[in-house]
Amino acid sequence: MARLQTAEELSKLLDYETFLFDCDGVLWQGDVLIPGAKEALALLRQHKKRIIFVTNNASKSRKAYKKKFDVLGIEAYEEEVFGSAYATAVYCSEVLKFKKGVDRVYIIGMSGIEEELDTEGIGHSGGSDPEDLQAGPYTLDQFKEDPSIKAVIVGLDQYLNYTKISKALQYLVRNEGCHFIATNDDSTYPAKDGILPGAGSMFAPLQYILKRSPVSIGKPNKTMLDCIVAKQHFDRKKSIMIGDRLETDVKFGIDGGIDTCLVMTGIAKEEDITGPNASDIKPTYVMASVGCLTQLVGST
Amino acid sequence: MARLQTAEELSKLLDYETFLFDCDGVLWQGDVLIPGAKEALALLRQHKKRIIFVTNNASKSRKAYKKKFDVLGIEAYEEEVFGSAYATAVYCSEVLKFKKGVDRVYIIGMSGIEEELDTEGIGHSGGSDPEDLQAGPYTLDQFKEDPSIKAVIVGLDQYLNYTKISKALQYLVRNEGCHFIATNDDSTYPAKDGILPGAGSMFAPLQYILKRSPVSIGKPNKTMLDCIVAKQHFDRKKSIMIGDRLETDVKFGIDGGIDTCLVMTGIAKEEDITGPNASDIKPTYVMASVGCLTQLVGST
Repeated sequence: MARLQTAEELSKLLDYETFLFDCDGVLWQGDVLIPGAKEALALLRQHKKRIIFVTNNASKSRKAYKKKFDVLGIEAYEEEVFGSAYATAVYCSEVLKFKKGVDRVYIIGMSGIEEELDTEGIGHSGGSDPEDLQAGPYTLDQFKEDPSIKAVIVGLDQYLNYTKISKALQYLVRNEGCHFIATNDDSTYPAKDGILPGAGSMFAPLQYILKRSPVSIGKPNKTMLDCIVAKQHFDRKKSIMIGDRLETDVKFGIDGGIDTCLVMTGIAKEEDITGPNASDIKPTYVMASVGCLTQLVGST
Repeated sequence: MARLQTAEELSKLLDYETFLFDCDGVLWQGDVLIPGAKEALALLRQHKKRIIFVTNNASKSRKAYKKKFDVLGIEAYEEEVFGSAYATAVYCSEVLKFKKGVDRVYIIGMSGIEEELDTEGIGHSGGSDPEDLQAGPYTLDQFKEDPSIKAVIVGLDQYLNYTKISKALQYLVRNEGCHFIATNDDSTYPAKDGILPGAGSMFAPLQYILKRSPVSIGKPNKTMLDCIVAKQHFDRKKSIMIGDRLETDVKFGIDGGIDTCLVMTGIAKEEDITGPNASDIKPTYVMASVGCLTQLVGST
């Protein structure tokens, strides 16, 4: 775990070819840009580095993310953004090799997942389908099994109901080969003034019944990285993950076999890396902020 | 574990004063009466025994249960029936000592629980309240905290939605003293041609988020027995639980300090008590069927 403070120390980062960035707590805090973040990204682009943005938020499509970059004045491209909904769709097409136009999935989740599956050419039911949004007693007489369903995908679903849980359960218990996939396993997400149930709590009923956990795609699980690599084909040994959380971002990098750099502008605090109860998860590097990279402006 | 086969062996049961009966698999199978069940219960009444019916089904009120006994021609009284919804209401009033007309609870569940809470004089929100049946995005701006809420109660809820999970979560995270209670922890319930999500899977999202389990009232948890004793004031040492399941009925009796009698007309099979992989849960007695008790007709 090396500290990067001086321009000479920081210049080590330029040996990497690919930079994976967490966003919240690294590039911005809520709607406020981290000082120097914009310039740091511009510097990396000047040096012809590949940039990838990695977020667990499955409710937003890549388009919605691109919009946020635009509003904050940061250069970014839709194909550089990997949300867990998109990564889940890529996992189905590239890792599970689902046949486009043939294999389908059942969704507990919202339009973000549906849009990303559409992009990958994977059919789906559940989600925002009107018949699945019906609340109220569900009986098995209502269940019309679709043999093309090869997976149940669960993400944050603000329209979660008994019908969707019941139908997802049927697919998982009647077909042993049906994949059980979660966009991410965050139990909650932060809201203004508190917390609300997250993707993890959406699959909890099925996990409780089946006594098994879904394959979770989002950070810290390496599945997300496998998907990004499948799409972007970069060399993990020449890549670095920059994030603000040890348990998600840094663990994500370590488990995926890429170097990591912790920044101190988000969740992790100094005591988490050097205190008496410091985490066992150790980043390759630590720097105060992505803004530090601006020291390298003008370097070659 | 003694076998009760002859009239002499069976007559030992008449030493008990109170008989707790599971219903399905003991008195009936679905809608079909077990032969001799009616006469066995009549015999116990002739001997002035106290009879209590104990079921985990929280969706039915005691009235609905009484109706089933009527249809099958069995003498039974509403106050003899303990469903987990009723026991949960009694737990609130008699064990937690909630103040009638003052303390209130938030419900993820259906009208069965609401009716039983009404009987005990405990106010409630959630459940079938129209505003809580609204699907769709829930924001914390919508949350109007009710300081009189002292517990979140979760049972089977075929109208489960994101709103109810979100509101229940607020009560549990904002007030450390808020009780977290489940009617029972059965993950599913048997339906025609399969299984559907049960009460346990309704509290799974909250359990996943809070990393703690609710106090579960139904069998095999002794809380149910504590409630029954609080209402009926019988002597556990002179009581016996008669059931068809080792993991629920017999464990329920053992954990509650009362003797047990397994019948072989339901779930438990001979191999479960004597086979190479027999359960560690051992009943006091085993008899083929409650119908065996008819051998004692005419005895004094």
